[in-house]
Amino acid sequence: MDVIEVIRAKRDGGTLTPEQIDWVIGAYTRGEIAEEQMAALAMAIFLQGMDRAEVSRWTEAMLDSGERLDFSDLARPTTDKHSTGGVGDKITLPLTPTVAACGAAVPQLSGRGLGHTGGTLDKLEAIPGWKASLSTEEMRRVLTTTGGVICAAGSGLAPADRRLYALRDVTGTVESIPLISASIMSKKLAEGTGSLVLDVKVGSGAFMKDLASARELARTMVDIGNDHGVRTVALLTDMESPLGRQVGNALEVAEAVEVLSGGGPADVVELTVALAREMLLAAGLTPGEGGTKDPAEALRDGSALASWKELVREQGGDPDAPLPVAAERRVVLAPTGGVVTRLDAYQVGLAAWRLGAGRARKEDAVSFGAGVTLHAKPGEEVKAGEPLFTLHTDEPERFDRAAEALEGAFDIGAGDEWKAAPLVIDRIA
Amino acid sequence: MDVIEVIRAKRDGGTLTPEQIDWVIGAYTRGEIAEEQMAALAMAIFLQGMDRAEVSRWTEAMLDSGERLDFSDLARPTTDKHSTGGVGDKITLPLTPTVAACGAAVPQLSGRGLGHTGGTLDKLEAIPGWKASLSTEEMRRVLTTTGGVICAAGSGLAPADRRLYALRDVTGTVESIPLISASIMSKKLAEGTGSLVLDVKVGSGAFMKDLASARELARTMVDIGNDHGVRTVALLTDMESPLGRQVGNALEVAEAVEVLSGGGPADVVELTVALAREMLLAAGLTPGEGGTKDPAEALRDGSALASWKELVREQGGDPDAPLPVAAERRVVLAPTGGVVTRLDAYQVGLAAWRLGAGRARKEDAVSFGAGVTLHAKPGEEVKAGEPLFTLHTDEPERFDRAAEALEGAFDIGAGDEWKAAPLVIDRIA
Repeated sequence: MDVIEVIRAKRDGGTLTPEQIDWVIGAYTRGEIAEEQMAALAMAIFLQGMDRAEVSRWTEAMLDSGERLDFSDLARPTTDKHSTGGVGDKITLPLTPTVAACGAAVPQLSGRGLGHTGGTLDKLEAIPGWKASLSTEEMRRVLTTTGGVICAAGSGLAPADRRLYALRDVTGTVESIPLISASIMSKKLAEGTGSLVLDVKVGSGAFMKDLASARELARTMVDIGNDHGVRTVALLTDMESPLGRQVGNALEVAEAVEVLSGGGPADVVELTVALAREMLLAAGLTPGEGGTKDPAEALRDGSALASWKELVREQGGDPDAPLPVAAERRVVLAPTGGVVTRLDAYQVGLAAWRLGAGRARKEDAVSFGAGVTLHAKPGEEVKAGEPLFTLHTDEPERFDRAAEALEGAFDIGAGDEWKAAPLVIDRIA
Repeated sequence: MDVIEVIRAKRDGGTLTPEQIDWVIGAYTRGEIAEEQMAALAMAIFLQGMDRAEVSRWTEAMLDSGERLDFSDLARPTTDKHSTGGVGDKITLPLTPTVAACGAAVPQLSGRGLGHTGGTLDKLEAIPGWKASLSTEEMRRVLTTTGGVICAAGSGLAPADRRLYALRDVTGTVESIPLISASIMSKKLAEGTGSLVLDVKVGSGAFMKDLASARELARTMVDIGNDHGVRTVALLTDMESPLGRQVGNALEVAEAVEVLSGGGPADVVELTVALAREMLLAAGLTPGEGGTKDPAEALRDGSALASWKELVREQGGDPDAPLPVAAERRVVLAPTGGVVTRLDAYQVGLAAWRLGAGRARKEDAVSFGAGVTLHAKPGEEVKAGEPLFTLHTDEPERFDRAAEALEGAFDIGAGDEWKAAPLVIDRIA
């Protein structure tokens, strides 16, 4: 087969055949297609798109480029969640032990943060002793023992995706719905989950800024999952404002523990419960029936918290150890009184990133204590001169640039200017 | 400046700024932009296009990547011709000495053939002793002495184009009108001609198969030339059928000499005279007035032939030496009698290529004697069983595949089915 012919076919708006797709992904993984040829093809796909059958085959070819885990012999049904990323999105932390406490098993492969959104592994590494890298055997052991595991994907899973993602990152071909979908789904299918719930974020702090794009991404990924025998459902959820009151690694772990202890911010609790119920249903279990606990009950009765502690311990962490705290704090006061009518997720994420919570390059380390605490969320009242944000950092020279990011990040107005928007916008099955 | 930002701007349908274009071409030439990034940008340009200002600046940036020859101190005005390539297109051979004989100077940098179209340098190398590679000083000397020179472009001219062309060749981004135009025009502007006539071919044997694309290519190149102070005109000419009766390197040299001797096929004479007149006019000379000979007269009176012999001699060739002849010949007979109503240029070019006249890879050698002789051109009568083609090759095992290419290449019908089409279709200034 000739790669130039494949590039031309897509360039001219054609549909790639299954044979062409299998050959391209295989040859690229084996190093037989040059980076510049794959870059041209990625741009052609970006601009000409792929149909459902093409995306599905592309995903499968990437999946086939590596190993595929299999947890079908576990005593419990498996289910997982993937979020497209947001600000303050610590949901995986309370969610995984909650679902485990309710009766399903959660083999969760997570990533690290890049840019203004954080990564689950960075957050968990704030816990003293906790380790992200597990062998497949360790992963299976933790999953069997505790009903959940959260770890880094091994390099043997979807290696084609790993290479293609690095290429897309430097060639302006990241924001393509077919390529994003295939990338996410090849990894999720490789991790061996039996069912999957997608949390597709939409709004200022999300990858997808508008509802139509988010809906298309959700639809594409749900179709891929179902085409491959993994029952897949997506929730479209709001990311105009940050989730919860804490943005930053250790700060978010602390907030997750509050939720697991039966407290915590209402939005984090609501989304945790909604996603947990979807995961149980996708796994074939009915929350509150036949020995399957309802997630809200698991958060109230301490069983989710017990699962959390067990999971953290099994991955080497001490769930009771004090979390890292940033060396310095600065409080930003409300300039006027009123009701917070807008709080921009992207700008809050940017501030946390500037304080050291995120990384500029893949090889950078994150600061565990850095981040932003939100004292007033949209819809809440604040008095002039009262704290609006607390900024946390180890390097005080970072405060000014972070404060700048927050300058236009909020509006304070009259109470009647505020209208609550639903957190869960839609469900795509 | 950030290359990913530039790629994204074009990908999203934006217009590149002059600063972005200058930086991209400069950084690519210096090796600071990776091949995969340039490939993604080339595909984005392919699919999103470039406007007149962008193409003009892109050309200029490629021109500025290397040296630019200057013949403005010659006693005569300079003019040149570029053809987009066709089958049997030996026009440069009679044209250059004809224009020189009429009073202008022609600094012609030519290329080699790849695929079904031949290259001027390959044809001239059929002449014993003739050499294509001249230093800038040798080029100037031949041009000053004879009024013409035909040689290979040195590696110092538009090096960005050289690198970009090689990249486009392997990434399916060749057939882009802005990129083709910038590639051709950066080289032509670099060779230092004062005026330029473009022969944009359209039809089965041409790069552009339809009139609209050919017109767009001509318009784009004419605009670039004029934007850079080089008076540029284009003729759109027919390439449904081959030019002349000979296709193949030495065969075409012999036919060119016939034309220079006052004979030869009517279409080759017509196009040589039409292009020569345009070149003289573009150079500010009026054919037939004020000491400027008319090209038809130069072909009749032997002055063009004298210029040819001088030019060949000055480049080391012997214009009177016998030309190479292929070792083997096969005649293809007309299956029926009638008038030739169609003769497909692409298929004739393919047959010549299969006989050894062209090359499959850049590093291959061509066979000088190989090619196809056409015994009947469209509009001419042929009797059943009379010769239609003569195939020439050094390797008789090539005959069958060449004959196959010719099988569907012609129609023979009744005389009233034939309608002559104009050779020069349009003029774009």
